[in-house]
Amino acid sequence: MAIKIGVMGYGNLGRGVENAIKQNDDLELAAVFTRRAPETLTLKTAGVPVVSADEVAAWKDKIDVMILCGGSATDLPKQTPELASLFNVVDSFDTHAKIPQHFAAVDAAAKAAGKIGVISVGWDPGLFSLARMISGAVLPEGNDYTFWGRGVSQGHSDAIRRIDGVLDARQYTVPVEAALEAVRAGQNPTLTTREKHTRECFVVAAPGADKARIEREIKEMPNYFADYDTTVTFITQEELDRDHKGIPHGGSVIRSGVTGADKENKHVVEFKLTLDSNPEFTSGVLLAFARAAVRLNAEGQAGCKTIFDIPPAYLSPKSGEELRASLL
Amino acid sequence: MAIKIGVMGYGNLGRGVENAIKQNDDLELAAVFTRRAPETLTLKTAGVPVVSADEVAAWKDKIDVMILCGGSATDLPKQTPELASLFNVVDSFDTHAKIPQHFAAVDAAAKAAGKIGVISVGWDPGLFSLARMISGAVLPEGNDYTFWGRGVSQGHSDAIRRIDGVLDARQYTVPVEAALEAVRAGQNPTLTTREKHTRECFVVAAPGADKARIEREIKEMPNYFADYDTTVTFITQEELDRDHKGIPHGGSVIRSGVTGADKENKHVVEFKLTLDSNPEFTSGVLLAFARAAVRLNAEGQAGCKTIFDIPPAYLSPKSGEELRASLL
Repeated sequence: MAIKIGVMGYGNLGRGVENAIKQNDDLELAAVFTRRAPETLTLKTAGVPVVSADEVAAWKDKIDVMILCGGSATDLPKQTPELASLFNVVDSFDTHAKIPQHFAAVDAAAKAAGKIGVISVGWDPGLFSLARMISGAVLPEGNDYTFWGRGVSQGHSDAIRRIDGVLDARQYTVPVEAALEAVRAGQNPTLTTREKHTRECFVVAAPGADKARIEREIKEMPNYFADYDTTVTFITQEELDRDHKGIPHGGSVIRSGVTGADKENKHVVEFKLTLDSNPEFTSGVLLAFARAAVRLNAEGQAGCKTIFDIPPAYLSPKSGEELRASLL
Repeated sequence: MAIKIGVMGYGNLGRGVENAIKQNDDLELAAVFTRRAPETLTLKTAGVPVVSADEVAAWKDKIDVMILCGGSATDLPKQTPELASLFNVVDSFDTHAKIPQHFAAVDAAAKAAGKIGVISVGWDPGLFSLARMISGAVLPEGNDYTFWGRGVSQGHSDAIRRIDGVLDARQYTVPVEAALEAVRAGQNPTLTTREKHTRECFVVAAPGADKARIEREIKEMPNYFADYDTTVTFITQEELDRDHKGIPHGGSVIRSGVTGADKENKHVVEFKLTLDSNPEFTSGVLLAFARAAVRLNAEGQAGCKTIFDIPPAYLSPKSGEELRASLL
């Protein structure tokens, strides 16, 4: 019998999960939950109800695992612990500095309810974290490097849109190719923020807006742009819609280490993602961990788990025998 | 208290494990076991005994985990189950087709003795298997590609050395760059054996040997070379010793998949290794899983495990709190 999936939130990520469920025979979409008026949403999957978030408790016994598709700033810190008292839950909470407190809140709620809560699964945090952890355990003497992009940063795009006179914007984070090649060559460079990434901004200005001021405000914005070499290109809304509609992303986690009696041998481990759609790939990761959450809970386990805590076999619909015979 | 490691076999891999233990504060080398006369071996680590393999049973309570450093053809199928009745064990068994029967033999012995046996951990099988499995679970619709090299194949080098008139040889497996780039670009090519890898052979011929015949015998050797574009270069023993002493290897596991309502979005996941020393990197993997074996057994678990079955956190000396705070 297929695993019944609930989806909380129907933005880019929720729609990605809906699509990805169709690529997995052992999963089915049971319901989508929203804080908007349910009748305003039209799903792509026939026959699946759209339910008000206020009524989620009534679905306690009709859903095997709830996938939380809200944002890390305000939605998930509240929703994940709350819903872990009713369901097995999975989220992609990505505020790295606040993971320990999020873990504690979800762990307490999930243990009290006898449920599993898997947090921070996506690609970073998520698959990138796993690559960092395993390569560090295998090569204890070495350096870690993470490069992001080329890809769209929603946070940086939003920051530009808040500037007076900006109608729309899209920001790409771009790794500096020379830095990436030095790391891949095992040179173990020490890199400043500016040396690792550049930022490319495509901006639609309001008619008559002061473009020089907008460009200056972007380039001088602390945290977001001031520490980077940033380029600003003004384009029309039509150009932005035509050329910058996608949400690509990706990047590389690289561990560069040494072994041998005299540390004479170098080793470079790289995990690299090239993604046409950031939310759709993240959806695939969320679903694999949704499958794992249901299995762990069926074995009687409860509490909060991260990607570090779950045996990888639980992510696959294949049996242990099949995995050993075909993929080991 | 440090985990006490036993090493069975003192070839390239055994020496690699000895070196790697010094890079891990929580591990210590307790003894090296050998089928040779123990007095003929000199370890690099002061104060560690070299013991005859015949006396291994006497070390039952003095070793936390035994790392098996023998070969997959004849040593490990016998040694791993035998030693799993005395110790937690870890091996790098790499005969892919025989993994299911090796798993069954180790599982029975380890369960009967209440021990953990971790098999087939290295990089392929091992980290490459994990990359294949996880990327397949995340991207269910797609193709897997594995490229090996540029690196030394011991099996192919040995096959050349068995030819009449050959004194020494070194064989490199080399991925075809154009094929690799097509896969990385998400083109999902169908590739023959010949299109994926070439083979470069450096051969020392005996004085007066018929080099044309040797070259022909290499290039026509079934399974090993006949299906590949193979180049043969005759060099002197001095050149071989000077230029081909290392044991580099590596390669890439790539999953190329699609998502979206109309499968319109492509994603490429690549896990890539560039290794100066194949046995030393493999040693690092073996030690991380040795740590995991001891921890699993301390929790009361027993039986055979593969890289698919073990929560990744068990590989690291860091606590769950440290991992979440620093690496997630």
